Amino acid sequence: MPIFLGVVTLLPRIKAETLVEIAVSILTAKGTPQNDAHVVAWHLVRSNLSGHDSHGILRLPYYLKVIKEGKIVPGAKPRIVRESASTTLLDGNWNFGQVTGKLAMELAVEKAKTTGIGMTALFNVYHTGRVGEYPEIAIEHDMIAIVFGGGNKNPQVVAPGGLTRVIGPNPLAIGVPTNQLNPFLLDMSTSIVAGGKISWYLAQGKPVPAGWIIDSGGNPTTNPADFRPPLTEYAQYHAHGKPLKRGSLLPFGDYKGFGIGVFIQMLGGYLAESGQGTQAGFIFIAIDISKFRPVAEFKNNIDNVITTIKNSKRRPGIDEILVAGEPEFNARTQRQRDGIHIEPQTWHDLQVLGQQLGIQI
Amino acid sequence: MPIFLGVVTLLPRIKAETLVEIAVSILTAKGTPQNDAHVVAWHLVRSNLSGHDSHGILRLPYYLKVIKEGKIVPGAKPRIVRESASTTLLDGNWNFGQVTGKLAMELAVEKAKTTGIGMTALFNVYHTGRVGEYPEIAIEHDMIAIVFGGGNKNPQVVAPGGLTRVIGPNPLAIGVPTNQLNPFLLDMSTSIVAGGKISWYLAQGKPVPAGWIIDSGGNPTTNPADFRPPLTEYAQYHAHGKPLKRGSLLPFGDYKGFGIGVFIQMLGGYLAESGQGTQAGFIFIAIDISKFRPVAEFKNNIDNVITTIKNSKRRPGIDEILVAGEPEFNARTQRQRDGIHIEPQTWHDLQVLGQQLGIQI
Repeated sequence: MPIFLGVVTLLPRIKAETLVEIAVSILTAKGTPQNDAHVVAWHLVRSNLSGHDSHGILRLPYYLKVIKEGKIVPGAKPRIVRESASTTLLDGNWNFGQVTGKLAMELAVEKAKTTGIGMTALFNVYHTGRVGEYPEIAIEHDMIAIVFGGGNKNPQVVAPGGLTRVIGPNPLAIGVPTNQLNPFLLDMSTSIVAGGKISWYLAQGKPVPAGWIIDSGGNPTTNPADFRPPLTEYAQYHAHGKPLKRGSLLPFGDYKGFGIGVFIQMLGGYLAESGQGTQAGFIFIAIDISKFRPVAEFKNNIDNVITTIKNSKRRPGIDEILVAGEPEFNARTQRQRDGIHIEPQTWHDLQVLGQQLGIQI
Repeated sequence: MPIFLGVVTLLPRIKAETLVEIAVSILTAKGTPQNDAHVVAWHLVRSNLSGHDSHGILRLPYYLKVIKEGKIVPGAKPRIVRESASTTLLDGNWNFGQVTGKLAMELAVEKAKTTGIGMTALFNVYHTGRVGEYPEIAIEHDMIAIVFGGGNKNPQVVAPGGLTRVIGPNPLAIGVPTNQLNPFLLDMSTSIVAGGKISWYLAQGKPVPAGWIIDSGGNPTTNPADFRPPLTEYAQYHAHGKPLKRGSLLPFGDYKGFGIGVFIQMLGGYLAESGQGTQAGFIFIAIDISKFRPVAEFKNNIDNVITTIKNSKRRPGIDEILVAGEPEFNARTQRQRDGIHIEPQTWHDLQVLGQQLGIQI
């Protein structure tokens, strides 16, 4: 694609607001109600702002493809299946995960206001985007948030000692409000890294760091192709049932991290689902701080916890100790100011989409 | 202590029930109400049964010492400080942690029965024993449990890149009920191992495995004395303020595990406490499965998740894949049948206590 290599040097960084406008135009042209389009667009662009381009605007062309397949249904009405004073079982009804995920977190916050803690289990959802986005909804209400996403939809991770992919990357996000500082925001997969990172190394022709993956025989390897076999092998597998030799991601933190991953699989795949575990389900928990402690005092305490850690002595060669959420907030400050650099391929895809839909991009 | 070396070969394994009787006699002689003594005794002995002798009956002489210091107050009445439909802030009032921890979990279960999810934050508690015990209370009610314990009481763990101990071993326990199989029971510290393990290697004169600790300069080390300096150095430190050079435990799972540890520090130290963070506080969450899914179906699902993992292909040289809780349940079966082997020193300590209190052991 030499055409893009020529374009990229001239390509301006794009303001977040402009990207949101583009995304909203495309989404509404495809039948997404205006409000929902705003939610999805901002969710995607905030991932770009936060430095997580893999969950950003590049997903949009892919979502449109999935809409065509009927796996995302714009405008579909989510349905409360079961409800108690603090809990909700929510059928996302295949609306955008960003729309139903936001609703799920808001329902948890609403219930927590009365009962102290609220929990929503969301199923029939294709993709929620970056789970690290949702705790911020609770933080705005001075609440602590825990979000889990898990199921058998895409197993990639082996048990310690195992050879078969048995659990998904099952992400986990946690948010705690602060006073002066940026909130504490942990956003992580329970696989040692997200599978997408292996694809990135494969595309770059680089070895992955040791300790991330094993090959199909269980041997440690740094060759990303051991995890992602060439597409030709997938074709052989699908056409002729030829066994697909592929390795696995290791869990983070050995058997402890694996245990947390299994727990998230149980919650997301079975508590939040119709019980097949074949899709990923999501759990949203909000805790109202004011039911335990004076909020302002607590938030000052959390500032102090973070400051103590950041100011603790560093090992030789370490410039700064970063606390969960800091890389994202640093990226936001920079990208809000300078704009977001969009990869040529993504920019091209958006322009093609715009032409098809008669939108000027 | 050659006397004990002579005795140990003759020492019978002791039935759990006998150990409980001994512990109850000692505790009641020290002013603990009968019911509370049973709770504490069974909690300790169940740790022995589960293979965790470090949290078992050997703690009893230590608890009696702490009672003398006023840090545990047998029979003290726990107090509900604040309450909402789903949450309780519970002042343990320095009664045994096993007594107030059990109450805290039961309160969470009670509230979850009505509202779907219950949460108790417990403070003014010296030591709860093994946190892995508490989820079983919720499991008996067909509930999922999450337990956190954290605070600045005993910081041992450094930040990735850091040199100073900034957080405690901040344990985490999770329980999920099953149908035919043993429950899923994850019980772990967020330090790479519990500090007690380093002491064990020190006592054995053995190097610790690589990747567990760093020395006071931040260098990886396998010498347990780099983490636990000789007592003489502590004496110099206390008497003359001579700087104490000691290393730190690493967190489990690098920055992800550290993030989880920091979160538990925030909850245990500040949400569950008077806001000083200088003691460990504990969080107990119970989730009522029936508010989301038919319980029997869900429990069958969990059996299947566990079976799939256990039956997954194994790497060469691996005999069995164990799921969280299995080592403990296997130990229980064996020790219920064969009795519990008590270390000579512990047995001696118990006999001395018995003599002082006029109890035949």
